[in-house]
Amino acid sequence: MFKQSLINRFKDILGEDNVLTSKEDLLSYSFDSTPDFESIVPELVVMPESTEQVSEVVKIANEKEINIIPRGAGTNLCGGTIPVENSIVVVLTKMNKILEIDEENLTVTVEAGVITQAINEAVEARELFFPPDPGTVAVSTIGGNIAECAGGLRGLKYGVTKDYVMGVEVVLPTGKVINAGGKTVKNVTGYDLPSLYSGSEGTLGIITQATLKLLPLPDTKKSMMAIFDKLDGAAETISSIIRNKVIPVTLEIMDQVTIQSVEEFANIGLPTEAAAILLIEVDGIEEVVERDAKKVVKICKENGAREVKLAKNEEERFEIWEARRASLSALGRMRPTTILEDATVPRSNIPDMIRGVNKIAEKYDLHIGTFGHAGDGNLHPTILADERNEEEMKRVHKAVEEIFDLALGLDGTLSGEHGIGIAKAKYMTKELGEDGLQALRDIKFSLDPKGILNPHKVIGAGDNE
Amino acid sequence: MFKQSLINRFKDILGEDNVLTSKEDLLSYSFDSTPDFESIVPELVVMPESTEQVSEVVKIANEKEINIIPRGAGTNLCGGTIPVENSIVVVLTKMNKILEIDEENLTVTVEAGVITQAINEAVEARELFFPPDPGTVAVSTIGGNIAECAGGLRGLKYGVTKDYVMGVEVVLPTGKVINAGGKTVKNVTGYDLPSLYSGSEGTLGIITQATLKLLPLPDTKKSMMAIFDKLDGAAETISSIIRNKVIPVTLEIMDQVTIQSVEEFANIGLPTEAAAILLIEVDGIEEVVERDAKKVVKICKENGAREVKLAKNEEERFEIWEARRASLSALGRMRPTTILEDATVPRSNIPDMIRGVNKIAEKYDLHIGTFGHAGDGNLHPTILADERNEEEMKRVHKAVEEIFDLALGLDGTLSGEHGIGIAKAKYMTKELGEDGLQALRDIKFSLDPKGILNPHKVIGAGDNE
Repeated sequence: MFKQSLINRFKDILGEDNVLTSKEDLLSYSFDSTPDFESIVPELVVMPESTEQVSEVVKIANEKEINIIPRGAGTNLCGGTIPVENSIVVVLTKMNKILEIDEENLTVTVEAGVITQAINEAVEARELFFPPDPGTVAVSTIGGNIAECAGGLRGLKYGVTKDYVMGVEVVLPTGKVINAGGKTVKNVTGYDLPSLYSGSEGTLGIITQATLKLLPLPDTKKSMMAIFDKLDGAAETISSIIRNKVIPVTLEIMDQVTIQSVEEFANIGLPTEAAAILLIEVDGIEEVVERDAKKVVKICKENGAREVKLAKNEEERFEIWEARRASLSALGRMRPTTILEDATVPRSNIPDMIRGVNKIAEKYDLHIGTFGHAGDGNLHPTILADERNEEEMKRVHKAVEEIFDLALGLDGTLSGEHGIGIAKAKYMTKELGEDGLQALRDIKFSLDPKGILNPHKVIGAGDNE
Repeated sequence: MFKQSLINRFKDILGEDNVLTSKEDLLSYSFDSTPDFESIVPELVVMPESTEQVSEVVKIANEKEINIIPRGAGTNLCGGTIPVENSIVVVLTKMNKILEIDEENLTVTVEAGVITQAINEAVEARELFFPPDPGTVAVSTIGGNIAECAGGLRGLKYGVTKDYVMGVEVVLPTGKVINAGGKTVKNVTGYDLPSLYSGSEGTLGIITQATLKLLPLPDTKKSMMAIFDKLDGAAETISSIIRNKVIPVTLEIMDQVTIQSVEEFANIGLPTEAAAILLIEVDGIEEVVERDAKKVVKICKENGAREVKLAKNEEERFEIWEARRASLSALGRMRPTTILEDATVPRSNIPDMIRGVNKIAEKYDLHIGTFGHAGDGNLHPTILADERNEEEMKRVHKAVEEIFDLALGLDGTLSGEHGIGIAKAKYMTKELGEDGLQALRDIKFSLDPKGILNPHKVIGAGDNE
């Protein structure tokens, strides 16, 4: 418990209403969207309305060695915003202004707490386009998206959040405020701090503002669904589309377990005996989209697609994507606990990855549905379990570790888009080695010598040196 | 002078031929392509053939606190590879193997010493495309391009080198070897080291290998030249093209001083009374290129272009680009010393930037031609002088500083693509402030506590704390 005098210092900075101290309020910020982690109640929750306020809060925390947990909407799946002992949660949702849309330079400048969909809507009204599109786009904040380097369905063609972060304003662990990058397409003045802070998960500073790159909104798009009796056919289709120089915006896969769950849940007429479904969308100008869609349909059929549905209008397009949208909730309703992983492999290794996950499911007698962003190799093996069943959860943890080993053995990575947080921190040396992890720790503690910013996330609980 | 016993240790690691000790050899590595800097002769030059050799060399340097200057072809313009006292130049040009072109995953994996054009040629043979295209592409190495985050003519549409670096192998200042990133499009496992090392100018480690992203080779391209009597017309054209949602590959500008120099030098029929020329290229599939080219021609004319030449074939395309290719050499031959800057502004501020540079030229009675990548705001004000004339060089230095202030005042950056090196290190706080520069220093010395890797570059000569 903080002393009242300390709490008053925060109230002086932030105003009475922006400092939460009630048990109920603190409890609401003791967890995030990550299942299977013990919640820890923070000492205080503050809701700053300006960079200056963030800076003042961090200065006090630094002085008193209080831990800071920066947080947006708390939608992350890696335990990235779960508090630690002696911590203040700094919630940025009140810093929610879109500061400028610059149509000449194709940039938008925003405060960290803006909901990402609000950015999409604001720029689309001017026929511009902010491509990163995580599943939580309607609720998650841009600051959280940058901190976790959120991905989404458009990664194959358009990349991920970091590819759109041109400039950042950051409150350092000392409370000092720095700016790096900006509105120029080219900038090599010093190390690339906008990229370093993208995906830094709140461990190196608090992102308070960002300048983001925009693209012209594509003229049109076209969606397809292809149904395969054999997994190999679907896999070969993915490779063949790329080899034929078509880069779809979105190229999603659903395996049989996922198809069956969705059908049982949503009853939308999916073929439950199919081995895999591919969902594909191409975008661009009319002529290109027509040409690419035709190519894709042809490639699907050449590789044994039993059926290819091409959406003729927006309504049909919506229907095609219904299946994908329903995947997570359909899988999620089968059991009380849904563990959604995002181990990622080079796209050519997707068939081996899916087969390997199926073997792991069999070995540990678990129900695992796999769906996700096949085009960029970012699959979501989804383990269905019950966290109250200790014995089952032990099998889950073993399976998760084997999924990571499988992905790394296939030249992949622990996490494509969900982040490391505390959930995956203990696996870091598997990918980076002791020396690689030490390099990250060196960077972390050089900027945050007291280790007060989002402790234990990314780099684990190891001390400074 | 190193003791013979120490030199022998290097010879044991690298072989006799890969350790250069003669005065002539050492002298050749005492400078790079940067004018107006005092050369410092290194103690030794080594040419490793493998990552292991680089690692062993760095281990000895670390043990003995000898400075290491990593170097590719030495084409940089920021003094990025000029030695310091007590240093070994590590030349990576013998590590020149293209290790793998992966057509399924659209990646190429290379050693650091491969010449960038060799990568272009190898991947284009498979109808793939590595977009970064610095002016030195035919001689510079990919390791150098990554270390400086080289830009080039295609930045507007395709970005810069860092946008294509998916994975790196790095020898740390301790000699330890780490790998980060890889072949997956999405990777959020730890801080983004591939981006941090892109543009780190050899100060945080030696990049020995990289995995680079490739794109499908565009089907076709089309080039245009538009001649303007008024600078404002050219400037308005640039903005209007982007506003009309055309993103050219290349959108270059040459101002009157440059036009006149090129014409005097090359005699290719340029209109010497024109205020500015724009050179524009669009690429993509046939239909898009046709549509975009028509749009661009129309926009040029609407904004007062006196004439627009559209290349009808490869020969005419070559002719159009002749003027741009000749710009630097034409300006360069007018005076003994060419100071090529790359201060960069948001593209909407280009007219103000060009006008401002002209005023500075007048104020200091200097000849400054401006050309460059108007589409991405990366201009090259080129000051023509004689470094033997001390009084003139004083004016040059004052003008350079004012050009930086001008760019920063227009929301720009000190360097768009040439890097900071030692040439611009003293101006860093102008852009990043003391706190921003300190953050870079903290990162630098966390990874390189003895400060042996390319000392004084980027962060200046300030000590660790």
